[in-house]
Amino acid sequence: MTEPFDAVDVIRTKRDRAELSDAQVDWVLDAYTRGAVAEEQMSALAMAILLNGMTRAEVSRWTAAMIASGERMDFSGLSRPTADKHSTGGVGDKITLPLAPLVAVFGVAVPQLSGRGLGHTGGTLDKLESIPGWRASLSNAEMLAQLDDVGAVVCAAGAGLAPADKKLYALRDVTGTVESIPLIASSIMSKKIAEGTGALVLDVKVGSGAFMKELDQARELARTMVDLGTDAGVRTVALLTDMAVPLGRTAGNALEVRESVEVLDGGGPADVVDLTVALAVEMLDGAGRPTDPDEVRRALGDGRAMDAWRRMIAAQGGDPDAALPEAVHTEQVVAESDGVLDTLDAYAVGVAAWRLGAGRSRREDPVQAGAGVEIHVRPGEPVRAGQPLLTLHTDTPERFARAREILDGGWSVAPVGTTVPDRPIVLDRIG
Amino acid sequence: MTEPFDAVDVIRTKRDRAELSDAQVDWVLDAYTRGAVAEEQMSALAMAILLNGMTRAEVSRWTAAMIASGERMDFSGLSRPTADKHSTGGVGDKITLPLAPLVAVFGVAVPQLSGRGLGHTGGTLDKLESIPGWRASLSNAEMLAQLDDVGAVVCAAGAGLAPADKKLYALRDVTGTVESIPLIASSIMSKKIAEGTGALVLDVKVGSGAFMKELDQARELARTMVDLGTDAGVRTVALLTDMAVPLGRTAGNALEVRESVEVLDGGGPADVVDLTVALAVEMLDGAGRPTDPDEVRRALGDGRAMDAWRRMIAAQGGDPDAALPEAVHTEQVVAESDGVLDTLDAYAVGVAAWRLGAGRSRREDPVQAGAGVEIHVRPGEPVRAGQPLLTLHTDTPERFARAREILDGGWSVAPVGTTVPDRPIVLDRIG
Repeated sequence: MTEPFDAVDVIRTKRDRAELSDAQVDWVLDAYTRGAVAEEQMSALAMAILLNGMTRAEVSRWTAAMIASGERMDFSGLSRPTADKHSTGGVGDKITLPLAPLVAVFGVAVPQLSGRGLGHTGGTLDKLESIPGWRASLSNAEMLAQLDDVGAVVCAAGAGLAPADKKLYALRDVTGTVESIPLIASSIMSKKIAEGTGALVLDVKVGSGAFMKELDQARELARTMVDLGTDAGVRTVALLTDMAVPLGRTAGNALEVRESVEVLDGGGPADVVDLTVALAVEMLDGAGRPTDPDEVRRALGDGRAMDAWRRMIAAQGGDPDAALPEAVHTEQVVAESDGVLDTLDAYAVGVAAWRLGAGRSRREDPVQAGAGVEIHVRPGEPVRAGQPLLTLHTDTPERFARAREILDGGWSVAPVGTTVPDRPIVLDRIG
Repeated sequence: MTEPFDAVDVIRTKRDRAELSDAQVDWVLDAYTRGAVAEEQMSALAMAILLNGMTRAEVSRWTAAMIASGERMDFSGLSRPTADKHSTGGVGDKITLPLAPLVAVFGVAVPQLSGRGLGHTGGTLDKLESIPGWRASLSNAEMLAQLDDVGAVVCAAGAGLAPADKKLYALRDVTGTVESIPLIASSIMSKKIAEGTGALVLDVKVGSGAFMKELDQARELARTMVDLGTDAGVRTVALLTDMAVPLGRTAGNALEVRESVEVLDGGGPADVVDLTVALAVEMLDGAGRPTDPDEVRRALGDGRAMDAWRRMIAAQGGDPDAALPEAVHTEQVVAESDGVLDTLDAYAVGVAAWRLGAGRSRREDPVQAGAGVEIHVRPGEPVRAGQPLLTLHTDTPERFARAREILDGGWSVAPVGTTVPDRPIVLDRIG
């Protein structure tokens, strides 16, 4: 086959800060998927994109070309509208668990294709897999049937969606080309658009525990993704949310399922409840079913969301009444003086949970269902000398030392009487 | 084997505009040569270097690490000092042919490891191979013996010198990362330093027919290479020389050998003679044998340089008296009006010679010994309507059309009486 372009010319175009044409973008991603553009050529192009950026037209076409490399799902046959949520990843971020059934309560179907954790942020599938019997893999037909029946599904993305992205992501991971806003945005959005959702809410995390440490970067990423969704006909909004402090009072797998069930039962930490409600309101709005926030919040207390959760878990083989796994060993981190907890660093807690066994370093590693960090005191709450701040959970006690090491300096106690300002959970909205 | 560094960290360092440490540079080139750093990782690093540059310390260490990847030659056992010349490549650049024997006349040995042509610039080995019997491959022992006996050798570089450079150069060629001054400079200098010469003169070409089109770029490349040579203990100077117009009156293989023999016989075009003498003076000076330029020029007319040439060719199996190959077909490019030749573009002439069969597009392609372009009129010389300006030579007449196509617009005739300013051949000296 004669190729219409030369890979070196495409690389040079971006290297020399010119704009890639639609035809160049279409060709380079198709040829890369076919193997006609070599890995070393795509990595040079990715580095040039990282350093020289992309225009809105380029990143939009790049996303479309990644979608075109694979199958697209179609939910137009469903009796209900669809809405999905994507989080850029944080510590203690179990929001999908209460959110999907909560939105389903109001007649909007949630087709959530999810991933596993890597590094210090947890993965939704890892969390749900701590429920005895629950399975992440569904066929497309099973997924559609569950959406029609229960209205919510959280499952593993199949290999058929955006294979160009799958190949490119693995390449970026080993070539130092992950941290590019156009490449991050197109990677996320190609999968979400191919997934076929009608509306999409992006939860873009900001702070030490997030991929984006600074508000400006996060806003740029959110704006880029909202533009991409809008260009592709998906009603898309983004909330920028705080990830300087972990979400809620747990970071781990079974630990976070337990906390999610508390939220679905009308309890749970205020920040988790508030963010769940805020995202649900946006999803319902995007799906054309605007709903009063107080009414949404009521569904968490009156059993409707819990019913949907139980049906969603049972539909995928899980036993919603089964006891959750618990770690074999625990240790506590204790306050040394009286005062007020001033800071609790999300990154330190995330790395500690990972080191305790809740996360993985390589895709093929297993995770411990019971491992993680339990947070007894959150910033702004009073502490007494000797009071436990954190409980560390693991099946493998040799891991405690390295978890304590990263937590050292990851929290601080201010003198008694200090006022620690409340942190809003939602920092900005882009839509 | 546990690696002391992670390739992604090294790539990120350069990507984020920090300086690579000596240990990082040493490791990444060693690991790349061993295959522990993948091609796609090195290409991402090369793109980051191209776009973000390198400090003097980085490029110096990079060069040293490429040298360390292979063998180093040693001429310290020779009875004479050594000096070499490297040209960055031009059109009609046959200077090595008269220069090597000329320098040998004055007791300085010239160990010239040379290459083949690729694209529109010719290769010294391709030119010499048009001499019946001459062979480019010598063992190290043969090379040393010839240097001791004749004092000059032009031969193919063995695979043992700077293998990291060889591998990296092939990668840069397919990943759009050729045009980086630190990578170009370190590639050239790693081979020249590993070759073991005591003094080195760089002929950095500037103009349409050269790799560097602008004087500023060429000066930066020259300065970088002079610094690298100096840092490595090689007495190094650079001349910046004009390559807007072809050198001399021929571009091809046998055609350039014929012109070189004219120069060795006291004749030949003034620009070729002037540049040969200027470079010889610099080489003799660098080797600690400063010689009056007039004395050097005399050796071209009185038979001394011709004797050295004949011995140099014969030592490698060539017959200096054999008739040179001639192309089967010729065509002429003719002036359409009276006037003065105003311009003759080096790039157009170089591409024409390449298309006629003198050059190659891929390393494995053969070249035609007789093919090329003969220049009858140089800029500043008068022309009459109907007078031949160029003769095109090839064995394959279907090539004439594409050669004429690139030459169209590659020359211009100014009205009778126009004064075309003389072009100095040496534009600057950096040492």
